[in-house]
Amino acid sequence: MNPLLKEIRHNPMLWLLAFVPVVFAAAKVKPEAHTWLFALSVLAIVPLAALLSHATESVAAKTGDAAGGLLNATLGNLTELVIALTALRAGEYMLVKASIAGAIVTNTLFMLGASFLLGGLKHHVQEYNRVSARLQAGLLLLATVALLIPSAVATADSATKAMFTQPLSVGLAVLLIVTYGLGMLFSLGTHRELFASAELGEDGETPWPIGLALATLAGVTVLVALVSEIFVESVQKAAETFGMTPAFVGFIVVALVGGAAEMASAFSGARKNRLDLSVGIALGSASQIALFVAPVLVLLSYFIGPAPMDLQLWPGAVVMMLIATLTAAFITVGGRSAWFVGVLLLMVYLVFAMTLYLLPPQAH
Amino acid sequence: MNPLLKEIRHNPMLWLLAFVPVVFAAAKVKPEAHTWLFALSVLAIVPLAALLSHATESVAAKTGDAAGGLLNATLGNLTELVIALTALRAGEYMLVKASIAGAIVTNTLFMLGASFLLGGLKHHVQEYNRVSARLQAGLLLLATVALLIPSAVATADSATKAMFTQPLSVGLAVLLIVTYGLGMLFSLGTHRELFASAELGEDGETPWPIGLALATLAGVTVLVALVSEIFVESVQKAAETFGMTPAFVGFIVVALVGGAAEMASAFSGARKNRLDLSVGIALGSASQIALFVAPVLVLLSYFIGPAPMDLQLWPGAVVMMLIATLTAAFITVGGRSAWFVGVLLLMVYLVFAMTLYLLPPQAH
Amino acid sequence: MNPLLKEIRHNPMLWLLAFVPVVFAAAKVKPEAHTWLFALSVLAIVPLAALLSHATESVAAKTGDAAGGLLNATLGNLTELVIALTALRAGEYMLVKASIAGAIVTNTLFMLGASFLLGGLKHHVQEYNRVSARLQAGLLLLATVALLIPSAVATADSATKAMFTQPLSVGLAVLLIVTYGLGMLFSLGTHRELFASAELGEDGETPWPIGLALATLAGVTVLVALVSEIFVESVQKAAETFGMTPAFVGFIVVALVGGAAEMASAFSGARKNRLDLSVGIALGSASQIALFVAPVLVLLSYFIGPAPMDLQLWPGAVVMMLIATLTAAFITVGGRSAWFVGVLLLMVYLVFAMTLYLLPPQAH
Repeated sequence: MNPLLKEIRHNPMLWLLAFVPVVFAAAKVKPEAHTWLFALSVLAIVPLAALLSHATESVAAKTGDAAGGLLNATLGNLTELVIALTALRAGEYMLVKASIAGAIVTNTLFMLGASFLLGGLKHHVQEYNRVSARLQAGLLLLATVALLIPSAVATADSATKAMFTQPLSVGLAVLLIVTYGLGMLFSLGTHRELFASAELGEDGETPWPIGLALATLAGVTVLVALVSEIFVESVQKAAETFGMTPAFVGFIVVALVGGAAEMASAFSGARKNRLDLSVGIALGSASQIALFVAPVLVLLSYFIGPAPMDLQLWPGAVVMMLIATLTAAFITVGGRSAWFVGVLLLMVYLVFAMTLYLLPPQAH
Repeated sequence: MNPLLKEIRHNPMLWLLAFVPVVFAAAKVKPEAHTWLFALSVLAIVPLAALLSHATESVAAKTGDAAGGLLNATLGNLTELVIALTALRAGEYMLVKASIAGAIVTNTLFMLGASFLLGGLKHHVQEYNRVSARLQAGLLLLATVALLIPSAVATADSATKAMFTQPLSVGLAVLLIVTYGLGMLFSLGTHRELFASAELGEDGETPWPIGLALATLAGVTVLVALVSEIFVESVQKAAETFGMTPAFVGFIVVALVGGAAEMASAFSGARKNRLDLSVGIALGSASQIALFVAPVLVLLSYFIGPAPMDLQLWPGAVVMMLIATLTAAFITVGGRSAWFVGVLLLMVYLVFAMTLYLLPPQAH
Repeated sequence: MNPLLKEIRHNPMLWLLAFVPVVFAAAKVKPEAHTWLFALSVLAIVPLAALLSHATESVAAKTGDAAGGLLNATLGNLTELVIALTALRAGEYMLVKASIAGAIVTNTLFMLGASFLLGGLKHHVQEYNRVSARLQAGLLLLATVALLIPSAVATADSATKAMFTQPLSVGLAVLLIVTYGLGMLFSLGTHRELFASAELGEDGETPWPIGLALATLAGVTVLVALVSEIFVESVQKAAETFGMTPAFVGFIVVALVGGAAEMASAFSGARKNRLDLSVGIALGSASQIALFVAPVLVLLSYFIGPAPMDLQLWPGAVVMMLIATLTAAFITVGGRSAWFVGVLLLMVYLVFAMTLYLLPPQAH
C-alpha cells in the first residue's frame, strides 16, 4: 500500500486535509466572507504542515540533520516568501517589513522556546550541537546590526534620509546575501564535521522512500503557498473583526501561521529528542529570512514593486529583533536545554505579543 | 548558655545593637532631627543585618545552599517591600520605582561585585554553580525586557499612552509573577539536582539550633522593617543636607542601606569560599525584586495607593538595569571568579553612582 | 652581518623604506600637494609597520606572549596618541573623538576579524587563551558603559548639560585609568598564570638580539610618529578629493592607517598559528585606547588644549562601539576560531564602513 495513504489513515490530524478543497471552493464562491476564509485557511494549513513535516523528516533521515534542517528551512520559508511577494507587488511595504521582522522574532523566540518546552516536558535534559546554534545566532546578530545601524545613525531630515537610505539598503542587502552564502560554504563545506548531530534520538517511524518524500515535499509546498494567499487576503479584515491591531497581525498572526509547517517539524523533532533538528529549523529559518529572504525582497523591489523598498524598520521592531537575537545567543551558549529554558523564551515572546496587542494603532 | 547571647558577647559588631532602642527613642523625642535619625538608623541596621546573616546561615546549613539562598533573598527583600509599601501608600511612585530599579542594579553590580572582590582577596580563584547563576541572569533579562519594551514601543502621545500603559503593566506583572513561580518549580522541584552547590567551603562557626535561628530570623526582620521606616523618612531630608540629588538617594542610598542585611550574608559567604551562597543571594534577590516585589506592588497599587501605578521607568533607569543585567550575564558565563571580576562589576556601579550624583535634579 | 640589514635584503616589502625620506622631503618642498603626501605617507608607514612587527616579535619571544602583546599594543598606540595630541592642540575635538572611537571599532572588528580570517585560511581550527580575551572584552564593555551612560542619562538642556558633562568626564577618566592599572596588576601580576599562551606555534624566523630589537622598536616608533603627522595633515584634504565624508575619514581611514603597525604583527601572528598574540594585540590595543589613551587625552585637554574636552561621543559612534564590543565578547566566549568567524566580524565592520561612507555630511 502507498505509504502516503497509510500515513493519512493512521494520523487523524491529516483528515483535516479535507479543508484544502473546501477553502479553495469557498474563496471562489464567497470571496467576501473574510472571517470564514481566515478560519478555513488556518484549518487547511495545519494538515499540510504535518505532511510537510513527515516528508522533510524522511529526506532528512537520508541526508543527515544539518542538510535536512537547511532543506526544511528553505521550503518552510517559501510560505513567507510568497506572502511577502504578494504584498510587495501590491506596494504594501509596511506589511512586508512587519512580516519579515515578525517571522524572525517568532522563529527565534516562539518556535525555539516551544521546542525546548515540548522536548523538556518529555526529556529531563536535552543536548544539542551548540556550534551550529552559535553560527546561526552570529548570522542573526549580523543581520540585526545591518538593520539597526541605518536607523541609529540616520538624521531626522527626511529629504537627505531617503537619498542615504536607498543606496545603503542595496549595499547591505548584497552584504547579507554574500555572508549567507559564505555561511553555507562553511557549515556544509569546509567545516561540515563541526555541524554533525550530537545524537540521533529514538526514531519510531519508518521513513518514506526518497522519491515519494520529494514529490510530497514539492506538491504540498505548492498547496501551502496557494492556501497562504487566501489566508493573507482574509487575515487583515478578520483581524479587524476580532479587534486586533495591524502591528499584532503582521508581527504575530502572519508569522505564526506562515511558520506552521516548520513548527510542526521542529516540535516533532524536539519530542523525539532530536533537538539538533529543532534548533536547526528555528534558528536556521530565522537567519535565512534575515540574510536571504529580506535582502532578496529589497533587490526584487526594484523590478516588481511600484517603488524601491528599503531595509529600515520602525524602531520598536528593531528593538524586538535585537532582544530576540541577543536572547537566543545567550540561551544557546551552553548547548543544553530543559523545560524552563523554553518558558523563558516563550515569556519574552508573550511580552512582545502583549505589547503589540495593546499598542494603539497610530503608534508605528 | 544561649547561643544568641554567646554570639553577641564574642562579636563586637553586634554591640551596635544598642542603637536600636536609641533610634526608636530619638524618633519619638526628636522626629525633626533628620540628619541624626539617618545616622542612627544606619548604625542600627548594621548589627541587625549581621544577626540576620548568622541566623540565615544556620537555617541554610540545615536546608542546603539553594533553599538557604532563596530564604535569605525572601527575608532580605522584606526591607525593600516595607519601604516601597510605605512610599506607595503616600503616592510617591517616583521613589517606589527608583528604589526598585536601584535595588536591582545594586544587587547585581555592587553586592555581586563586592562578593567577588572580598572572596577573591582571600582565595585565588573561586568557583560557583553557573547553572544557578545563569537561571537568575535569564530571569533578570526577562524582567528587564518587560520593563524596556513598553518604553521602546510607546508613542509620544501621552493621552493614548496612559490608556495603553496601564493594562500592559497589569498584564506584564501577572506574566512576571507566573514566570517567577515556574522558576522556583524548576530550581527547587523538577531540576533541583542542577542547582546543588559545587563545594561546601570550610565552615568555622557552629550553626544555631533551628528553632532559635527561625525565631531570630523572624524577630530581627521585624526590627529591620521598623528601623527602615525611620530611615526612609529621614533619608530624603538628610540627603539634601549632604547635597545629594533625589535620583542618587532613591537609586543608591536607599538600595545600599535597604540591602545591608543581605550584603552581610553575601560577603561573609564569599570570605568563607561559599560563593554559591553569595551569588545566590545577590542575583536571587535582584530577580526576586524584579519578578515578584515590583509586580506585586503594581497589583497592590489598585487597592492601597491613591491611583494605579504602572511599570514604566525613566529611560536612564531602564538603560542602567539593562547594562547591569547584561554585565551580570556576561560575567557569570564561566562559573569562576577572581578579584578583578569584582573590580569590573564595582566600576560599572561607580560609573552609575557618579553619573547619578552629578545629574542635575530636573533631569529625570 | 647585521640581522637588520639581512632582514631588509630578504624582505622586498621593506624596500618601501625608501619612501620614508621621500615623504619628509616632499612635505618640506610641496606642503600643499595633499593627495601626493597622503599616498606617500601611507607607502612609508607600511614598511615601518613591518619592521616594528619583527622587532616586537623578537622581544615577545624573550618575554612571553602576554607581555609581548602588551608591549606591542603600547607602542602601536603611540601612533594614535600622537595623532590625537596634534588634533587636541589644534582644538579639533571632533576629530580626536572620531579617531578614538574609530580605533576601538577598527581594532575590535577589522583587526580581530582579519586575523581570524587570515589564520583560518591556513589553519582549520585555531585555539587561543579565552581568559585573556574575556578580560579585554570585559574592560572594553566597562569603557563603553562609561561612554554610553552620560549620553543616555543626560538632559536635552544644553546649559545644565555642560555643567554636568565636564566634571563627570574627569571622574570617568580617573575611573578608567585606575581600572586599566588594576587590570595590568591582575594579568601581569597576581593571576599571571591564567594568561599564559595555549600554544607556541611553529616559529620559522630567528629572533633578533634583544638590544637590536629594542633599538629598532624605539627608532621606528619615532619615524612612524613623524610620518603619521604628515598623514594627518594631508588626509582630510585628500579625502575631500576622493569624495569621502569626514565621519568616514575619522572613523575608518585614520584608524586603519594609524593601526597599520599593530595589524602587521597581528596578521603575521595569526598566519603562524600564534592566535594568542593576534587576539592580545587586537583587543589589548582597543582596551588600551579606551581605558588609557582616551582618559589621558581628557585630562591633558585641561593643560594643552584651548578648552577642556569631555568624553561624550555622538550617539551613532556610541552605538557602533557598543555593538563592536558586544560582538567581540560574544565571539570570544569559546576560545576557538575558524575562517567564518573572521568573516562575521569583518561584515559587521563593513556595515559600519558602508553606513559612514554614505552618511550625509551634516548628520553627526
